[in-house]
Amino acid sequence: MSELPERVRIREVGPRDGFQNEPEVIPTADKVRLIGMLADSGVRRLEVTSFVRPDVIPQLADAEEVLEKVERRESVDYSVLIPNERGLDRALAHRDRFDEVNVFLSASEPHNRENVNRSIAESLQGLERTIATARGEGLRCEGVISVSFGCPYEGEVPPERVFEIAERLAEAGCDEVAFGDTTGMANPRQVTEFFGLARERLPDVELTAHFHNTRGQGLANVLAALELGVESFESAFGELGGCPVPPGSTGNISTEDLVSMLEEMGIETGIELTALIAASRAVQDLLGRPLGAHVLRAGPVDWHR
Amino acid sequence: MSELPERVRIREVGPRDGFQNEPEVIPTADKVRLIGMLADSGVRRLEVTSFVRPDVIPQLADAEEVLEKVERRESVDYSVLIPNERGLDRALAHRDRFDEVNVFLSASEPHNRENVNRSIAESLQGLERTIATARGEGLRCEGVISVSFGCPYEGEVPPERVFEIAERLAEAGCDEVAFGDTTGMANPRQVTEFFGLARERLPDVELTAHFHNTRGQGLANVLAALELGVESFESAFGELGGCPVPPGSTGNISTEDLVSMLEEMGIETGIELTALIAASRAVQDLLGRPLGAHVLRAGPVDWHR
Repeated sequence: MSELPERVRIREVGPRDGFQNEPEVIPTADKVRLIGMLADSGVRRLEVTSFVRPDVIPQLADAEEVLEKVERRESVDYSVLIPNERGLDRALAHRDRFDEVNVFLSASEPHNRENVNRSIAESLQGLERTIATARGEGLRCEGVISVSFGCPYEGEVPPERVFEIAERLAEAGCDEVAFGDTTGMANPRQVTEFFGLARERLPDVELTAHFHNTRGQGLANVLAALELGVESFESAFGELGGCPVPPGSTGNISTEDLVSMLEEMGIETGIELTALIAASRAVQDLLGRPLGAHVLRAGPVDWHR
Repeated sequence: MSELPERVRIREVGPRDGFQNEPEVIPTADKVRLIGMLADSGVRRLEVTSFVRPDVIPQLADAEEVLEKVERRESVDYSVLIPNERGLDRALAHRDRFDEVNVFLSASEPHNRENVNRSIAESLQGLERTIATARGEGLRCEGVISVSFGCPYEGEVPPERVFEIAERLAEAGCDEVAFGDTTGMANPRQVTEFFGLARERLPDVELTAHFHNTRGQGLANVLAALELGVESFESAFGELGGCPVPPGSTGNISTEDLVSMLEEMGIETGIELTALIAASRAVQDLLGRPLGAHVLRAGPVDWHR
């Protein structure tokens, strides 16, 4: 285990992926307050909202207002999720309020159709234009490929297909590609094989692992990815959000559980765990229900008690 | 990851560790029914009860009755947890109803004092007599060392001290020693180092990992142990039981999450996941609250949907 990275990058996606999946709309002022707490904890990559259609996802209808009200920290790269060119046009009216766009599509045809009502080829064509426009505005671009490790509709997803999509995104201008285990089907052996191949196929792309904890294997998959040299992860504070398929299951891995494991292993995250837990406790109080993150309940490991 | 074991042994501890930690006493008939369901799912090592003092742990006051009523399967090794010689005497009145005893102590003085009100040296002396008696009766013996990876009272626990205790247990007649991460303080890098040393120090002992999921790292620790060649694990169906310290935290790793990960990785457990989930659903219905196991909620990965 001596070859593990010394530090990793974590993108916090809770303010987008988490708030989007709550049945109630969270007040804008609370969103802004929580995003501030996350930035104060040392999070350096922060996805703050999404420019999706407000009538489809009313939870994020305040995207413009959130961007304008967040107090920007020098240390943080703020990003927004962009579904298409129309969404990017809305975001660009606030160009000085964010650093990066995150675009997405699925690695399986039925999942992409279900999610954005397009074929993969149609999505790629649209995203190539979106990425070009964003790059023209000086924005960094990340492409997110959902169901990269298996699809609830299709079953197995050939890695080769995922890498072809990733190459298209990279050629279009994405510096980083995230591989999503959207419904928690990945296992550590598969993750090892996947990133072994990915490193060969995409040597110049930042490879990001976006695991879900649907079947409790999220951090085991992180460990497998770390051992393959992956240095970039996505997670959500409190274990917010993620895909509600299958019903009742959890989604994203929790940022505090991830940070706890990494820091205990001596891998730097830049995030101060107790400050992060304070942010999770604040969102838990706001939502009024216990959240799934383990370290939120158990607290950090205290070696000096 | 090519050197992972092809198959592993899992000891299901829920009927002892889980039922013991429930606020309500579970009716004996329900215990017997659930133990039967676990055996039917393919579990081959099954800790069914404990011979602790009934006034201290009334939840397991029916230990004799459970032993007598469980319908024994040829394929299953049944074990009982034994705190001391008095407990063993009680169990031996039902000698033909079980195959193995599990004895335990802590690797830290304050934790052992808190748990059994003895020093480690006193515990070891008592257990050496207990193990000798059990071996004389033809019983297999497993020694369990709690807080092997860190203690909530003491902090760091030197691995060397853990190995010295393990050696004493092995010399006394334990074929197997389990190392418990009783309050979920272990991390994968520590697990790697620990079992690397343990294999050298205890080459003739079956090494068993008993991880808790207190901070969400349970299966990541399993992966680290697997990579060091550990082939024996303990877990509880439904994610029952475990140490309630810190308050509100979860305990044992869940057997269904463990089996799901291992089988998806191509590592044989002998356990049929859907039958195991049926047992967990039955205990969840009985207890009337949602249990923590992820696969219980999400279901097995279905690659052929």
